[in-house]
Amino acid sequence: MDQDDNRVTNGHQNGCTANDKMKDEDVSSETRYEDGTVRLKNANIELMDQDILYHLALGSGSHDLVEMFGDVKFICMGGTPKRMEQFAYYIMGEIGHKLPTGTLLQDISQYSYRYSMYKVGPVLSISHGMGIPSIGILLHEVIKLMYHAKVKDPVFFRIGTSGGIGLEGGTVVISEQAVDGLLRPYYELPVLGKLVQRPAMLDKRLVRELKALHHPEDPYDTVTGKTLCTTDFYEGQGRLDGAFCDFNENEKMAYLEQIQKANVVNMEMESLAFAALTHNAGIRSAVICVTIVDRLKGDQIHAPKEVLDEWQERPQKLVSRYIKKFLQTKGRFMDSYCGSPCVKSPRRFKLVQQESENYD
Amino acid sequence: MDQDDNRVTNGHQNGCTANDKMKDEDVSSETRYEDGTVRLKNANIELMDQDILYHLALGSGSHDLVEMFGDVKFICMGGTPKRMEQFAYYIMGEIGHKLPTGTLLQDISQYSYRYSMYKVGPVLSISHGMGIPSIGILLHEVIKLMYHAKVKDPVFFRIGTSGGIGLEGGTVVISEQAVDGLLRPYYELPVLGKLVQRPAMLDKRLVRELKALHHPEDPYDTVTGKTLCTTDFYEGQGRLDGAFCDFNENEKMAYLEQIQKANVVNMEMESLAFAALTHNAGIRSAVICVTIVDRLKGDQIHAPKEVLDEWQERPQKLVSRYIKKFLQTKGRFMDSYCGSPCVKSPRRFKLVQQESENYD
Repeated sequence: MDQDDNRVTNGHQNGCTANDKMKDEDVSSETRYEDGTVRLKNANIELMDQDILYHLALGSGSHDLVEMFGDVKFICMGGTPKRMEQFAYYIMGEIGHKLPTGTLLQDISQYSYRYSMYKVGPVLSISHGMGIPSIGILLHEVIKLMYHAKVKDPVFFRIGTSGGIGLEGGTVVISEQAVDGLLRPYYELPVLGKLVQRPAMLDKRLVRELKALHHPEDPYDTVTGKTLCTTDFYEGQGRLDGAFCDFNENEKMAYLEQIQKANVVNMEMESLAFAALTHNAGIRSAVICVTIVDRLKGDQIHAPKEVLDEWQERPQKLVSRYIKKFLQTKGRFMDSYCGSPCVKSPRRFKLVQQESENYD
Repeated sequence: MDQDDNRVTNGHQNGCTANDKMKDEDVSSETRYEDGTVRLKNANIELMDQDILYHLALGSGSHDLVEMFGDVKFICMGGTPKRMEQFAYYIMGEIGHKLPTGTLLQDISQYSYRYSMYKVGPVLSISHGMGIPSIGILLHEVIKLMYHAKVKDPVFFRIGTSGGIGLEGGTVVISEQAVDGLLRPYYELPVLGKLVQRPAMLDKRLVRELKALHHPEDPYDTVTGKTLCTTDFYEGQGRLDGAFCDFNENEKMAYLEQIQKANVVNMEMESLAFAALTHNAGIRSAVICVTIVDRLKGDQIHAPKEVLDEWQERPQKLVSRYIKKFLQTKGRFMDSYCGSPCVKSPRRFKLVQQESENYD
């Protein structure tokens, strides 16, 4: 991680060495300016009078995006607005980020009515909805946001849930690669009437770094492997309980065993576009999902809500460890943090609140 | 419409004639019981102890779905929770539905944190999110909901926005058929590792019936044609302003002119799965979208918010006319409705509210 940061922060001082390293990680001058800020492959954007990020309710002409987002380093995405609001508060506690007195987190994209976005210092926490098109629109706009905000070498994470293939529920999976429903390692989409294929590659070093942050005392496994990304939750994932089902239990099991042999360890619905679009933009990214069911044992999710809630915190914990380690290295981590920024004595704090409530 | 209703309600009394008519409309005994209620093509569901509709926060074991949804006839879907809440209140006024004193509409699926669902008498108003996978999951679960609730011959509508091809902004488009980004008239998805194709067909009679509900005095056109459904908003729709763009303005225009020659009149991101899944379930359905930009003239949406808001009401108006006409035929339309159910005299109502505010 240190090496990487040197690479980025020293990019404009030490061009030659930096460029060599960038090449290793598929980060080229095509996707980075000399100072390490994000460069777009689409030259049209800088020629535009203003660029409206429709689905985020932000614009380059209406908002000072450098002022608002210039300090961002980590972009964390997950399915629902509620989960990502909860992650924002969780990471705030973890990294010791303090809000100014009398302020609350605000959903920055609330007027888009599509995605929710929270900012906690260097961390953005954004909901991506369900499926490739939904996360695809978001990625186009967040990558453009990185460019407009002149963000240096951002790291993107998708944290979510998935069906496990031969893994006990609650296992954390760091994806080595995403494949589609035909086991092909690319995201294929029609552009101007022709199929375009984009490799769905994830950063190998980031996988290793995240795997190393699993603690021996964690009461669950953290594994790496291929993630199969589908366009449907029911038929597309071989479930027998959709509105339609043209196959039987035996055919389903044969299929699940076939993908297990191809080293698929889990299934979800966003990793393919997430990997392909971040890779194409030269942005390091990782997909970390918890498994909520072992599909070799059934389709239905039987774990109680409390258990599922705890499981869903596991990918968040891993990402939090990564972010904290980075901030510690950079001296930006608040070691002194211990709960709410305004509380000196929890006992007296409580007393003052109770006293206050007595006055109508 | 009368004929259709007779067909359904008399289905079990007059089997032979009803079956003949059903065949005309691709409604077969495979997708309907004799009394006209929805039958699933997936026999597994009725063998299950309970069926959990995960993404709706409903279940056949936990909820009395017949009691809750048995009277539903029209399912209206659109992109955002906010838009569909607004539609729920709009249709409530339009059909004269009265809520019991002291009650409010509630988001039935609020604890799913994924979709929003409102019920206004015979109408469900549901948000579907963005893209095929998101609306696909919803359709699987809503079709199963129709089955569990024993709903008779439901009609599904998607109301939304779209990019027009050679149409002035604000034009209402009723889709005759949905096609994919390669102009193919089916929804293709991998199931158990093999590509499955489902015809993306929409009900022809419903298109005619809706078209006939355009009023000569409507200050906009209502047209029919093919709808091109994409998996991406930027590159997938030939926009030049995404994070990536590997084509130029001339290539874009050549493509848009090519699809115009193929009778495509608008582009959006959900119609393909909507048409294919409802058709496969033997459910009559229609896609009604307003165009918010003419893509032959540009990519950016320039109309001011007030104009866009009014445009988005146009598909809602058309669907409302259809629903009202149906309810009038069935004698279920409240002609006496005039605003809030509790207001006898608006002037005195206001006075009482003002008086009340004076007492602290």
